[in-house]
Amino acid sequence: MGKVLLSVGDIEADDWLRGLSLEHDVVMNVDQQSAQEIKYAVVWKPEHGTLAKLPNLEVIFSVGAGVDHILSDPQLPDVPIVKVVSENLTQHVTEYVVWRVLDHHRQGALYREQQRAGLWSEKPQRPAQEVSVGIMGLGQLGRSAGLALKHLGFRINGWSRTSQQVDGITSYHGDADLTPFLNDTDILVILLPLTPETEGIINYELLSRLRRLPAYPGPVLINAGRGKLQREPDILKALTDGTIQQATLDVFEEEPLPARSPLWGLPNLVVTPHAAGMSDPNHLVPAMLRQMAAYERSGDLGPVIDRTLGY
Amino acid sequence: MGKVLLSVGDIEADDWLRGLSLEHDVVMNVDQQSAQEIKYAVVWKPEHGTLAKLPNLEVIFSVGAGVDHILSDPQLPDVPIVKVVSENLTQHVTEYVVWRVLDHHRQGALYREQQRAGLWSEKPQRPAQEVSVGIMGLGQLGRSAGLALKHLGFRINGWSRTSQQVDGITSYHGDADLTPFLNDTDILVILLPLTPETEGIINYELLSRLRRLPAYPGPVLINAGRGKLQREPDILKALTDGTIQQATLDVFEEEPLPARSPLWGLPNLVVTPHAAGMSDPNHLVPAMLRQMAAYERSGDLGPVIDRTLGY
Repeated sequence: MGKVLLSVGDIEADDWLRGLSLEHDVVMNVDQQSAQEIKYAVVWKPEHGTLAKLPNLEVIFSVGAGVDHILSDPQLPDVPIVKVVSENLTQHVTEYVVWRVLDHHRQGALYREQQRAGLWSEKPQRPAQEVSVGIMGLGQLGRSAGLALKHLGFRINGWSRTSQQVDGITSYHGDADLTPFLNDTDILVILLPLTPETEGIINYELLSRLRRLPAYPGPVLINAGRGKLQREPDILKALTDGTIQQATLDVFEEEPLPARSPLWGLPNLVVTPHAAGMSDPNHLVPAMLRQMAAYERSGDLGPVIDRTLGY
Repeated sequence: MGKVLLSVGDIEADDWLRGLSLEHDVVMNVDQQSAQEIKYAVVWKPEHGTLAKLPNLEVIFSVGAGVDHILSDPQLPDVPIVKVVSENLTQHVTEYVVWRVLDHHRQGALYREQQRAGLWSEKPQRPAQEVSVGIMGLGQLGRSAGLALKHLGFRINGWSRTSQQVDGITSYHGDADLTPFLNDTDILVILLPLTPETEGIINYELLSRLRRLPAYPGPVLINAGRGKLQREPDILKALTDGTIQQATLDVFEEEPLPARSPLWGLPNLVVTPHAAGMSDPNHLVPAMLRQMAAYERSGDLGPVIDRTLGY
């Protein structure tokens, strides 16, 4: 049985190593000998060129819901990439999205400001039924977040590249539907994969198409997908000139967000440090081990990444 | 047909007046003549003694889910009190509770502090499955909030005076169950009615019985019920000495919360100005009008307040 390469970049590796070692020989560095023996690679942001050095590599497992961190390797070998999205990660991101939507919807920033000023003043509150949350990206994460918000009474729109039907979500797809989707959205939630088609999609022009109702505060942006989906100077401009009223960003073009970034100090922006979802080894490692065992038995890998789509 | 007295204290009265006037003669001040003609009273914090001046009063309608603001009148006449809890109010309070639970659970205060300091640092996040939310008060509001949090993956305990069975909620009741309920609760949510039995129930001793797990931050308190359920000096002490780690209070012993209160400035307390639920006349007035019409037709009032219980 071949070895497993574990390469998880800046993520704490101990629990991954312990879990995978239960059933496999695990190596964390590639040398001349191990390069021949490695059959599986479990990776997060693998160093470019590393995977190309493994002549007997059969399967790549992605740590994390997106695979852009793997596909960006120009020397990526042509072996299947398996994305293991755990129930646990899905729930984690759902919680985050519901938290951020409610904090904007319930005027959290305003009430925190009032508390600092010692000011007691109840503000009119728009009912959830009148608020459209629009989710870009209807994969496992987008669907779960949408249904949880639906349960709280919000109207839910979803937009994806190809048509996706989800009960309780009004679905839009493709370029032609993007404007109607945005025109009917008050709170925009981004859970898209990062691909050449989606890179930089969150720009000023897109944000200016969000719904603006008289007598209501302006639109809200929440990005819990990938930083490179957004153009940060555009977001800065939109938050400053009132095109959008508030935003939460969990991901950034460069991470960690550089100290010099003006985003840190914007009063109507909440910054979190890529904390929406954790890839928890306690949940992902058992799923990966089952996947490896099934592959050994039958060659079956289940759904794998379509490289032309990028997800 | 008798007249309606509208007396809603510090609440903006316009929409109430407009709605009730569609089907009734409405008066907002009691004089010698109108006192004889008033058959229904729609009230929020009515001035003590006012209702006693109405010899032909048949029904009191409470604006707001609690009726302590009516029962506190020592000269309250012996007529039925109807509490109209709208779907809308229930959803409003549910949203608020989910928002506050998630903000504490997802470490909102910590991430806001980190943003102010320009610090990028992801913190370990406890999964919702390991977190028990304990709800005191399993009326319509408590059940709805519990089920919404259940849907997000939290474990839900409920405590009430008498036994209440709700699918998905582990139910405790009465004095004997209070300690086991608290010992299994990480986030305590208060949605009790204010009665002589519950007044001051949220004291230091109760808070010190909440669950404390090693390696986890301490317990959290959220009061979205009534201010007089809590002893504020006890909450101040518990938040200061670490008996509880964080709290959100929407209600206070005295409202508006006095400028001199030290609660305003506690870093681990979120203060909101009795904003959890709004009694929205657009939803409540039609329900009251239907109720009055049914009463005229058949004398039926549906469920009324039990004065010995106080709810």
